[in-house]
Amino acid sequence: MAQNPARRVALTDAAVDVLAEQGARGLTFRAVDVRAGVPIGTASNYFAGRDALLDQTARHIHHRLTPDPVIIGELLRAPRDRALVTALMHDLVRRIDADRAGYLALLELRLEATRRPEIRALLTTTIREQLEANIAYHLDEGLPGDRETVVTLYLAMTGLLVEHLTLPGVLGPDALPALVGTLVARTVPGA
Amino acid sequence: MAQNPARRVALTDAAVDVLAEQGARGLTFRAVDVRAGVPIGTASNYFAGRDALLDQTARHIHHRLTPDPVIIGELLRAPRDRALVTALMHDLVRRIDADRAGYLALLELRLEATRRPEIRALLTTTIREQLEANIAYHLDEGLPGDRETVVTLYLAMTGLLVEHLTLPGVLGPDALPALVGTLVARTVPGA
Repeated sequence: MAQNPARRVALTDAAVDVLAEQGARGLTFRAVDVRAGVPIGTASNYFAGRDALLDQTARHIHHRLTPDPVIIGELLRAPRDRALVTALMHDLVRRIDADRAGYLALLELRLEATRRPEIRALLTTTIREQLEANIAYHLDEGLPGDRETVVTLYLAMTGLLVEHLTLPGVLGPDALPALVGTLVARTVPGA
Repeated sequence: MAQNPARRVALTDAAVDVLAEQGARGLTFRAVDVRAGVPIGTASNYFAGRDALLDQTARHIHHRLTPDPVIIGELLRAPRDRALVTALMHDLVRRIDADRAGYLALLELRLEATRRPEIRALLTTTIREQLEANIAYHLDEGLPGDRETVVTLYLAMTGLLVEHLTLPGVLGPDALPALVGTLVARTVPGA
């Protein structure tokens, strides 16, 4: 396998764009090469097969969507209350709005997982680790609520993000900030 | 346009299967004809174009997922409390488990909506009407909570169903019934 790290990142970024724009069925080595503007045949030197490409793309999306430690550090100066959870959820929405292709590509990968057991196994591990890390973070930082609070909020935010990114008119395009507040207020215990 | 109602239903059922199995990009008139086992060229006699096919498929999925009035009638003999909301949500999960292809096809249509404004407009109307009908039903039947309760529960159930249908191992395959109870308990007010 070829090892130029910058080129590997460029190829996985291109894979994210292909997934978001054309769906999982459009994701071929050739489409990735074209999207990345590299010679045909390049992607096949970086990934052992299509499943490896899909797996590394999923991990890369989670990396792209990772919070900025400076922003989170600033937010965490505040008291551990519902307002802080709301601010953290607004930051999540901000990151996903700034990387729509990343989140849409992840939804495409979820649907591809229903068709390909190898992808399902890989993606299950990645997303379960992410959820467990979120739960541990919430509890370790002393944010209000228990494990079930985090799972409930995670599921409600997943529903909100799917709705917002795919059919924003259902909830109304300006309804999002208020809805984030509603979801936190309805799922996270007060002081 | 050809008008054999049974054949129209068979063609939209086939479109649901093609969407679930191959994704939106696989949905062509030809693929629908093949899946339905009818002569090539049949689907093009029933739908004015691909957007019309996608729109009628979305409506058909909502029809397939409609509650059985007998089951709902039985459930609604109970007091209007949180336990009844939980029972209604279990019935929703049961219907979607019985029609996985329908719900997965709807997710494919959501992703296709991000690429095609015509589909976005049509699907937004269909799903907004469905959500407003759910809200009105909840309030008219005197179920506990307000409009925001229903929206919060709708979003949390959307997140749960996406997770359950695409990556059941993230939450654990046996976790679903308990999680339905958790979501209702955390979002719907008690007596």
